[in-house]
Amino acid sequence: MLYLVGLGLSDETDITVKGLDVVKKASRVYLEAYTSILLVDQAVLESYYGRPVILADREMVESDSDEILRDAQTEDVAFLVVGDPFGATTHTDLVLRARELKIPVSTVPNASIMSGIGAAGLQLYNFGQTVSMVFFTENWRPSSFYDRVKENRNIGLHTLLLLDIKVKEQSVENIIKGNKIFEPPRFMTVGQCASQMLEIEEAKAEGAYGPDSLAIGAARVGGKTEKFVAGTLRELCDQDEELGAPLHSMVLLGRRTHELEHDYVREFAVNKETWDSIWNAEYGKQQ
Amino acid sequence: MLYLVGLGLSDETDITVKGLDVVKKASRVYLEAYTSILLVDQAVLESYYGRPVILADREMVESDSDEILRDAQTEDVAFLVVGDPFGATTHTDLVLRARELKIPVSTVPNASIMSGIGAAGLQLYNFGQTVSMVFFTENWRPSSFYDRVKENRNIGLHTLLLLDIKVKEQSVENIIKGNKIFEPPRFMTVGQCASQMLEIEEAKAEGAYGPDSLAIGAARVGGKTEKFVAGTLRELCDQDEELGAPLHSMVLLGRRTHELEHDYVREFAVNKETWDSIWNAEYGKQQ
Repeated sequence: MLYLVGLGLSDETDITVKGLDVVKKASRVYLEAYTSILLVDQAVLESYYGRPVILADREMVESDSDEILRDAQTEDVAFLVVGDPFGATTHTDLVLRARELKIPVSTVPNASIMSGIGAAGLQLYNFGQTVSMVFFTENWRPSSFYDRVKENRNIGLHTLLLLDIKVKEQSVENIIKGNKIFEPPRFMTVGQCASQMLEIEEAKAEGAYGPDSLAIGAARVGGKTEKFVAGTLRELCDQDEELGAPLHSMVLLGRRTHELEHDYVREFAVNKETWDSIWNAEYGKQQ
Repeated sequence: MLYLVGLGLSDETDITVKGLDVVKKASRVYLEAYTSILLVDQAVLESYYGRPVILADREMVESDSDEILRDAQTEDVAFLVVGDPFGATTHTDLVLRARELKIPVSTVPNASIMSGIGAAGLQLYNFGQTVSMVFFTENWRPSSFYDRVKENRNIGLHTLLLLDIKVKEQSVENIIKGNKIFEPPRFMTVGQCASQMLEIEEAKAEGAYGPDSLAIGAARVGGKTEKFVAGTLRELCDQDEELGAPLHSMVLLGRRTHELEHDYVREFAVNKETWDSIWNAEYGKQQ
């Protein structure tokens, strides 16, 4: 059996009792470690599980999935995924390959950022499609997220933005030279996301949002040091210090909001007066 | 401290290790038991936790929250919620009341149907807003869900439909007579949902969807007997026996689909030929 086991959002104790039982009994345990990370290291997990964990990087999962699935017709293999196995990143291709090999698959769900973000105080019913924000480079500043955000905003819905992480990346120079030297991991901050959003709005000028649009920056959702900061996009460009260590994510508010959402979120506002005045002028409209 | 603890979707072992630790140590443990249910009874939970659990019905949570929060300034109170504490049903009002009483609040996230539905094989990025479907009665057949579904469909997105449950409901006769007699619990099935959807489409005739629109019926998501059946809305009117026991939920597909989604979901199709021919004609369009 291939078990896809969600680890939840924060530390080693966010695994479910069912998931932990699978991990303890499986023949091999893999940890998918390139689309998201826990707030604790592999060593903490290994010590908690009392057994070794094999790190599965993108290359292994995409090119060497048959090694992960080896003998899973008769043995149990656990594939650990931060968050929920079918959350922000799905492993559809791994499951499809398992089906071809007649390997039964079982899923142990867990919290995903896509539901965990509810802790910011916005109703999950009022969220539209989720979008990803990648790190802009000098030559690659993709704006495809913009149309998705605009679709959500047009019908009054909130947008969850999942922020890029770069782990085990090589510089162009090292790729060319064939050096297996990896850059230090990078995690996009709320400030970087807000400023990329404003850059694209300035370029497109379609008014999907603007510097005074309300948003919530979120850090370490589901963890003990979980932190939310609410403000305008302009304000959120400068709140990275307040938010602290990774992982960050962000919500751009839609106009279709409820009074309870206002009361709940205002607690996190950088500036409660600004928050209230913009909210009262432009939000809280039921469509 | 008030702890909001998610229980996940299926049985007693879906609680996280962190959540179980809270439950074992808290002064009092409440179980919110009116917006969703686990697939196991209260007695199973009590035996698993080794302690009594107080059932919190709607009346208690909405009118007597101060009893739930009693002494939580100095003691730990655990409030258990099926799924994620901030998933489909939020308890914003309870948290706001706790804030007024200067009670610190901590959340233990868990799987929610809103991310767990990813196991059906559709990318969560392609979902629009989630809607609720209530039981129609002779005089009350609310169609407000229709506009939401239409908004999603217009921009090519999938819609998760959460189906009504009725627990501890009284008949009108018993309410009038003041009898505290409760009706047996009722859980909406995929077939009931599909047929209510078709009724409203027939009445509105705005073409948000139709009898040949593709959908997925889901039963007991996250549980060992999890089951998905994919088909047209017309086909899903008659698949309740195949889907089996509650809880059910449903996804209406949007046109913005990926080939991997097709390959994954077709495994669940009532009729693979019908599924393929409708998919090829109308779905898989990137917008």
